[in-house]
Amino acid sequence: MIDANNPNLSSWIQVDPHSDFPIQNIPFGIFSTEDQAPGVATIIGNQVVDLQIIHRLGFFSDINIQEDVFKQPSLNRFIALGKEITAKVRQRISELFRSDTTWDIRNYAAQFLFNVESVKLHLPVQVGDYTDFYSSKEHATNVGTMFRDPDNALLPNWLHLPVGYHGRASSIVPSGTAIHRPKGQTMPDGATSPVFGPSRLLDFELEMAFVIGRNTHLGESIPVNEAEDYIFGLTLFNDWSARDIQKWEYVPLGPFLAKNFASTVSPWIITLDALKPFKVQGPQQSPQVLPYLQSSGKLNYDINLEVFLKPEDQEPTKICHSNFKYMYWNMSQQLAHHTVNGCNVHVGDMMASGTISGPTADSYGSMLELSWKGTKAIPLQNGGERKFIQDGDTIMLRGYAEKEGVRIGFGPCDGLILPAH
Amino acid sequence: MIDANNPNLSSWIQVDPHSDFPIQNIPFGIFSTEDQAPGVATIIGNQVVDLQIIHRLGFFSDINIQEDVFKQPSLNRFIALGKEITAKVRQRISELFRSDTTWDIRNYAAQFLFNVESVKLHLPVQVGDYTDFYSSKEHATNVGTMFRDPDNALLPNWLHLPVGYHGRASSIVPSGTAIHRPKGQTMPDGATSPVFGPSRLLDFELEMAFVIGRNTHLGESIPVNEAEDYIFGLTLFNDWSARDIQKWEYVPLGPFLAKNFASTVSPWIITLDALKPFKVQGPQQSPQVLPYLQSSGKLNYDINLEVFLKPEDQEPTKICHSNFKYMYWNMSQQLAHHTVNGCNVHVGDMMASGTISGPTADSYGSMLELSWKGTKAIPLQNGGERKFIQDGDTIMLRGYAEKEGVRIGFGPCDGLILPAH
Repeated sequence: MIDANNPNLSSWIQVDPHSDFPIQNIPFGIFSTEDQAPGVATIIGNQVVDLQIIHRLGFFSDINIQEDVFKQPSLNRFIALGKEITAKVRQRISELFRSDTTWDIRNYAAQFLFNVESVKLHLPVQVGDYTDFYSSKEHATNVGTMFRDPDNALLPNWLHLPVGYHGRASSIVPSGTAIHRPKGQTMPDGATSPVFGPSRLLDFELEMAFVIGRNTHLGESIPVNEAEDYIFGLTLFNDWSARDIQKWEYVPLGPFLAKNFASTVSPWIITLDALKPFKVQGPQQSPQVLPYLQSSGKLNYDINLEVFLKPEDQEPTKICHSNFKYMYWNMSQQLAHHTVNGCNVHVGDMMASGTISGPTADSYGSMLELSWKGTKAIPLQNGGERKFIQDGDTIMLRGYAEKEGVRIGFGPCDGLILPAH
Repeated sequence: MIDANNPNLSSWIQVDPHSDFPIQNIPFGIFSTEDQAPGVATIIGNQVVDLQIIHRLGFFSDINIQEDVFKQPSLNRFIALGKEITAKVRQRISELFRSDTTWDIRNYAAQFLFNVESVKLHLPVQVGDYTDFYSSKEHATNVGTMFRDPDNALLPNWLHLPVGYHGRASSIVPSGTAIHRPKGQTMPDGATSPVFGPSRLLDFELEMAFVIGRNTHLGESIPVNEAEDYIFGLTLFNDWSARDIQKWEYVPLGPFLAKNFASTVSPWIITLDALKPFKVQGPQQSPQVLPYLQSSGKLNYDINLEVFLKPEDQEPTKICHSNFKYMYWNMSQQLAHHTVNGCNVHVGDMMASGTISGPTADSYGSMLELSWKGTKAIPLQNGGERKFIQDGDTIMLRGYAEKEGVRIGFGPCDGLILPAH
């Protein structure tokens, strides 16, 4: 077991038992204050820990890191140090903040601790390229059933390769960024020419994304059973989608304006190390996949996922409870496939899972599926209902893994929808 | 007329009449030498001009530019200065290098001139996001005729919007970078399960790409008739494609591994200013497009495009002669469409045209079309023939606009195909 993951550890920082960030988590992110430019941080309970200061105080002096690695507006340089170093940093943070620490650190707390409510959290990485997969069998089956043929819901390639496509990196924003409803072209049913206006079928997609931790060169491929060495960690990911725009534009080259107006990520990258205790076997794959995709061992992760819809000035309603473990194609297979042709990857690239739907109707990861193409209203707490997202609604994604009393959470992944410009 | 474009100008640097880079061109790029880190340059004839030195010598002292803008491994910071500044730099370079210059510059030539053969040219910009359009009607019609129905070759959305999709930025490489044939999954005709191996149907796509010159914020849209203010300039662009991989993977989310193993660009960005004399009216659009796509004035560009295929140790054969003016959707429409939903763009983003095919069989911009899906061999100079690209072949894209004896060229856009790893 990784020492930092020990479920018996507690911190001298007080941590609420329902917190996403016990001392076993130690994620990485970027924060700033009114007085301080963006820099690298971790979080314990509700206390953001400024790692620039921790470094300046000498607590990382035996780990080979230049100080300006923590004085950056993204984690890219930190992640690029490699897992050997970043795992040492996580382990040291664990040692510094455990309740029985032998380090002389508590006296300095006022210098490096900030209440999370008092800081601004930023996009954790500069995303070079963003790829979106389509790897939940339940989701692909639901979509195929609705739009094509229930008896042949999956397209012929689906069981043979993790279908993916490129998305827009520039419009990935951190949790809390409000998003205007996109405008675009749609072709109304029965019409003969398209119309222009605000999307009427705005949707979320419940996804997770992994962040690349190690560069490859053009022409190199990552073997499936080494792929996790290239993954630094995970975030929650809301791949906002305008279904009416998508329907009109996507044939033959895939989604474009229906998706690239915004994607929302949670602000902390949870390391694969912290998630190690939650590895599980994925679904049986049949037919057998080609050798370059044959992975072995537990490569899925048992992470509970929830979606809440919060109308303006109302309480949130939980509209979905899913789990990352349902993924048919695991991240290692996605990355092996992505690079089998020699495509290079860079630190900070994000690769999202595609919508994560489970087997039951309350585990579907999009309004499209939850309302079954708008044929079924989703009831809300305060008596309202929804088929798609309305202006003023906030979509809140939550994720956590839990075991032996330890909850490794992801923090909020929230986005408020504003009216179209 | 922009003074720097005056066809009567000549330079005190000797310029071959067939050169792509007369003094009327003044493109921007990134070069390095064995002794010198990458920096910003222009080129006149075959002489690369080091703009760091020109600046250090004080020739830009009345233009407000920090010196380190030229000491960068990409043009992004230079471009981000804005067109007002970059146009002044281009104009000043024109004044410095015209044969009747009144500036005391020739004595310093040894400090800043490098023969292009003696330097390394780099990717001119750091590409944040790369988008590929599909905007040649002839190309879309050819593809639709081959793979679907000759009577309904264009899909329903094609005449209403410039179809586009996101591509991979990390694998964009400068001219001269050799590329290994990609491996991947394909489904052979009549087979029931896919196979893995090197692509057998490797292709080029003759495209041009424009480079974004000005940032927008998420939520902003660029009006179609202001779009050129956001375009810094153009390059040649070879969107390498593995047709057999594409065929198996692309439904329903578009091309992925068939395209992202590499794209090749020419090393110099030709400014829109330099191309101003070559603006022409585009094709008539019918049916009329929606108001946000209605552009006015000459927004197409008359740029001759050629493709040569050079087998190992043999002479190149010209296999295609097309023209950028054939584009049905112009760049302004592409950019207006791309941002109509609020998608933000960044300096350095590249947006490629899609394959630029003309009306005649010798103007088709891909092997797929030239060999009509492999049914027709393309004869080569030395007696050989091709249907698709073989290992050892180099594909060479060339482009130039020409008028009143002035040739504004793009330089080489070459890629050698090596065997699969």
